[in-house]
Amino acid sequence: MSEKVVVIGGVAAGASAAAKARRTDEFSKIIIFERGPYVSFANCGLPYYLGGEIKERDELFLVTPERFKERFNIDVFVNHEVVKIHRDRKTVEVINHKSGERFEESYTKLMIATGGIPVRPPLEGADLKNIHSLWTVPDVDAVKTLVDSGRVRHAVIMGGGFVGIETAEALLQKGIQVTIVEKGNQLLSPWDPEMAGLVAQQLRRMGANVRLDVGIRRFLGAKTVETVELMDSTRLPADLVIISAGVQPELDLVVGAGLELGVTGGVLVNSRMQTSDPDIYAGGDIVESTHFITGQKVRVPLAGPANKQGRVAGANMVGGNMEFRGVINTSIIKVGPMTAARTGLNEKEAREAGLDYYTTFTVSPDHAGYYPGAEPMIVKLIVEKLSGRLLGGQVVGTRGIDKRIDILATAIYGKMTVFDLENLDLAYAPPFSSAKDPCIMAGFVAANVARGELQTVTGMEVLERLAEGRDVQILDVRTPDEYTRGHIPGAVNIPVDQFRNRLHEIDKTKEKILYCGIGYRSYLAYKILEHHGFKNIKNLGAGYHGWKMVEGLRNRKQ
Amino acid sequence: MSEKVVVIGGVAAGASAAAKARRTDEFSKIIIFERGPYVSFANCGLPYYLGGEIKERDELFLVTPERFKERFNIDVFVNHEVVKIHRDRKTVEVINHKSGERFEESYTKLMIATGGIPVRPPLEGADLKNIHSLWTVPDVDAVKTLVDSGRVRHAVIMGGGFVGIETAEALLQKGIQVTIVEKGNQLLSPWDPEMAGLVAQQLRRMGANVRLDVGIRRFLGAKTVETVELMDSTRLPADLVIISAGVQPELDLVVGAGLELGVTGGVLVNSRMQTSDPDIYAGGDIVESTHFITGQKVRVPLAGPANKQGRVAGANMVGGNMEFRGVINTSIIKVGPMTAARTGLNEKEAREAGLDYYTTFTVSPDHAGYYPGAEPMIVKLIVEKLSGRLLGGQVVGTRGIDKRIDILATAIYGKMTVFDLENLDLAYAPPFSSAKDPCIMAGFVAANVARGELQTVTGMEVLERLAEGRDVQILDVRTPDEYTRGHIPGAVNIPVDQFRNRLHEIDKTKEKILYCGIGYRSYLAYKILEHHGFKNIKNLGAGYHGWKMVEGLRNRKQ
Repeated sequence: MSEKVVVIGGVAAGASAAAKARRTDEFSKIIIFERGPYVSFANCGLPYYLGGEIKERDELFLVTPERFKERFNIDVFVNHEVVKIHRDRKTVEVINHKSGERFEESYTKLMIATGGIPVRPPLEGADLKNIHSLWTVPDVDAVKTLVDSGRVRHAVIMGGGFVGIETAEALLQKGIQVTIVEKGNQLLSPWDPEMAGLVAQQLRRMGANVRLDVGIRRFLGAKTVETVELMDSTRLPADLVIISAGVQPELDLVVGAGLELGVTGGVLVNSRMQTSDPDIYAGGDIVESTHFITGQKVRVPLAGPANKQGRVAGANMVGGNMEFRGVINTSIIKVGPMTAARTGLNEKEAREAGLDYYTTFTVSPDHAGYYPGAEPMIVKLIVEKLSGRLLGGQVVGTRGIDKRIDILATAIYGKMTVFDLENLDLAYAPPFSSAKDPCIMAGFVAANVARGELQTVTGMEVLERLAEGRDVQILDVRTPDEYTRGHIPGAVNIPVDQFRNRLHEIDKTKEKILYCGIGYRSYLAYKILEHHGFKNIKNLGAGYHGWKMVEGLRNRKQ
Repeated sequence: MSEKVVVIGGVAAGASAAAKARRTDEFSKIIIFERGPYVSFANCGLPYYLGGEIKERDELFLVTPERFKERFNIDVFVNHEVVKIHRDRKTVEVINHKSGERFEESYTKLMIATGGIPVRPPLEGADLKNIHSLWTVPDVDAVKTLVDSGRVRHAVIMGGGFVGIETAEALLQKGIQVTIVEKGNQLLSPWDPEMAGLVAQQLRRMGANVRLDVGIRRFLGAKTVETVELMDSTRLPADLVIISAGVQPELDLVVGAGLELGVTGGVLVNSRMQTSDPDIYAGGDIVESTHFITGQKVRVPLAGPANKQGRVAGANMVGGNMEFRGVINTSIIKVGPMTAARTGLNEKEAREAGLDYYTTFTVSPDHAGYYPGAEPMIVKLIVEKLSGRLLGGQVVGTRGIDKRIDILATAIYGKMTVFDLENLDLAYAPPFSSAKDPCIMAGFVAANVARGELQTVTGMEVLERLAEGRDVQILDVRTPDEYTRGHIPGAVNIPVDQFRNRLHEIDKTKEKILYCGIGYRSYLAYKILEHHGFKNIKNLGAGYHGWKMVEGLRNRKQ
């Protein structure tokens, strides 16, 4: 028996659901109502269209309504807003915004994929002209027109998340002075602070002004915005403001229909993407998902899960039987030549989930150092104590970051431990990796820690010890040249190759923190000390890199 | 109690073992004897030094004997050949090739890492000048001197494996006419023939002459080689011959010492890398390993396993307790702009292991099609029937190939199924991937097949049906333009968007094979046919790409 499927919202989850429903059943009637003027557009591509990497506006449209009709026999109605769901009579009430017409459409199965809308903070002056989000095609059209007019010299970006940073880069490329204002104490909240700090450093290198720990008080101007006033009373000139202060799920229809919400405030769905009404499905930015590691409910408004959820819902609405298995919140962002990526739990999430964990930092080249073009990356692992289970990973660098985060994401999905990670059989040839891939190297170190062969300390922890004035001996085991070019305050220089002959210079009583450039030479020195009976030794993860990351955080506030 | 560790062979496994032994125990005495003039050199980098990517010869040396001494307190003796192991008195007999001196050195733990030596086929003329392997630094020095002299116009490469192909590329870059002669019916035997065929096509596009299915009969010339005569009596001019016809384990010492060999002919070791003598360890190209999927013994002479085996042996010799968990034979090769990679079992290996499997082919862009620079890749999966367990993967394309093979290798290591693969939570942003990553897309298709939602046929199977003159209806669902530019012989063109209206043109009685450009439009057409009651439908994996791969194989023999 075929269904009459109505899909509300025609972008990621909605479009996927409709197409999968058609592939699952040729005879169901399938209708998409989309409030906006476009379906199936490349939401994630908008900043790149603004920045000019994507040259043609048409590239943003993945599947047109005409294509939906002729290829999938799916009827798409754009500029059609569903304003109410009548569960009692199984209809939706629709307004055609072009004609003003209002009508009811019946369904046997309904898919709600209304997505999110950018949070619009209730600030004075927020209705001035040239204050925009960057969420839809009309949004980018408006901003691009403004930018291309050449009249924008100063832009302020409210919020340091994905869209904010990607838009900052696009505007910097256009020669515009950009300030990112983030009221939290770091950019990119899904990352840990020291990893996000690398992104802030990168944005500053690219010329952006990054302001953390301060919110926006109000927008000033006659008709168009001219000035942004911060909570600390700083005033920034602004011909353009981009609001990227988060996205909230568009839940009016869901709430109006009396469907259950979950603990996160997202729509409650089961693994088949069914809401509390078994004939109504939901997916994408509005639903809450199960976290694959913790089993807890989370909202992860990203394109990958949305597409998969849509596919599952689409199949199930017309007789299929698929499941969405949950999320680990893998994500990635390009910032100029830098890439930052993360997967699984960050430290804050691991703490909140009540997990006992440790972290490791390693620095490795993306491919064999003897083949040209190798670039270092920092890999951070979050690992469950005792079990050694991989809980999370974060990688920042310039080349091959996407590969390493996907290896870690796959390992987390496979419930692997760091003992698995160090044994992975990955592809090696000089242009692509080393015989010891960065992920394997991270596995080596994390497994060494788990086996008790190594105790580490993070840059953050060194920073804390210094701030507390604790009596530690910091040993820099690099060459005198490296030491002279910069070192941790108070560090004593004993090059690793002289270590065996200079053990008498090392204090037996104090805690000893060893570091080198990336953590490998100091690991050798660590083992020498340990074997000579020294106690209370720590190796600084990622070495001087690990220090520079957090040293930057000290100077974070501008 | 500290050990006296003697390591025979100072490259990958030997060097790793010595360094890990030192990190595990500061007080053991550690000695490396290396027959050749160099330790710890970048074996895998030799073709790139020849080709000029690696500019400095010094780059090839990863750790010098001096560095071993001062940093690791390890004594390295190069040009020192161990000629006999006296297990009764726990000594090795050593010849110093510089001085001619012969002496015995005692050990408490011995590591054998003698590696492989290139097979030197016993052919007429094989001792002529300018016939070389490319296995050691002296090898590459000799070849580079010859090439840089400008006197090499024609080179013949015997054997189409890793070294043969990488050397072919290096010589082509130098403007030399190159012929690869491979006596098997494909290059790169670890890959399946149709995937290896893409590499052969690529080499031909780069100007190489690739001769398959024919061996070399003899080498002709006065003092230096001038002509290579093939088994079919073809004569090829040759100023230089590279022998890359495989590598055999260097087992003289092992056999002489009466240590047990395994079923593959490699040294038998346990997971702690111990040989049949518990005080003697081995690793690298000479040992046999356990295949992670089949549990069978295999020899995988690659750098990744060698380094890990060395690390395990090194720790265990001085009191550690580590295990080497086995191999899945992940490997990768760059061929001009193309990359080919593989992991797990290929079809032949799956058959030989008695596994019931199916294969899928998918073509996907390496990143979002709307972001510039996206390039297609072909992903082949080998999947166990019933369980859906991923047995193997092969990926060929130009960008992001290393990432996808490592995702698949990690998934195989995690014993994942295609249902896991389709659910992976990978990193998506337009420059790096699509919301449906090539691995996820491959998982979608393979899981659809496992669920019975789709039956596929491979290009090979279409080729067989045509060769047998079977009465199939081949339906090309692309546009008329695409069809006109090239199609499978006998195919009828019914574009997918006209499919619903032209069902009467389709033969109910015959087997129907559907294809498009990559397999997605034909999948839609397949579902339309199926829902309209048609039986015996197959979708051609990778579409016209899948055909072009095997069509190339038909014309393989030159």
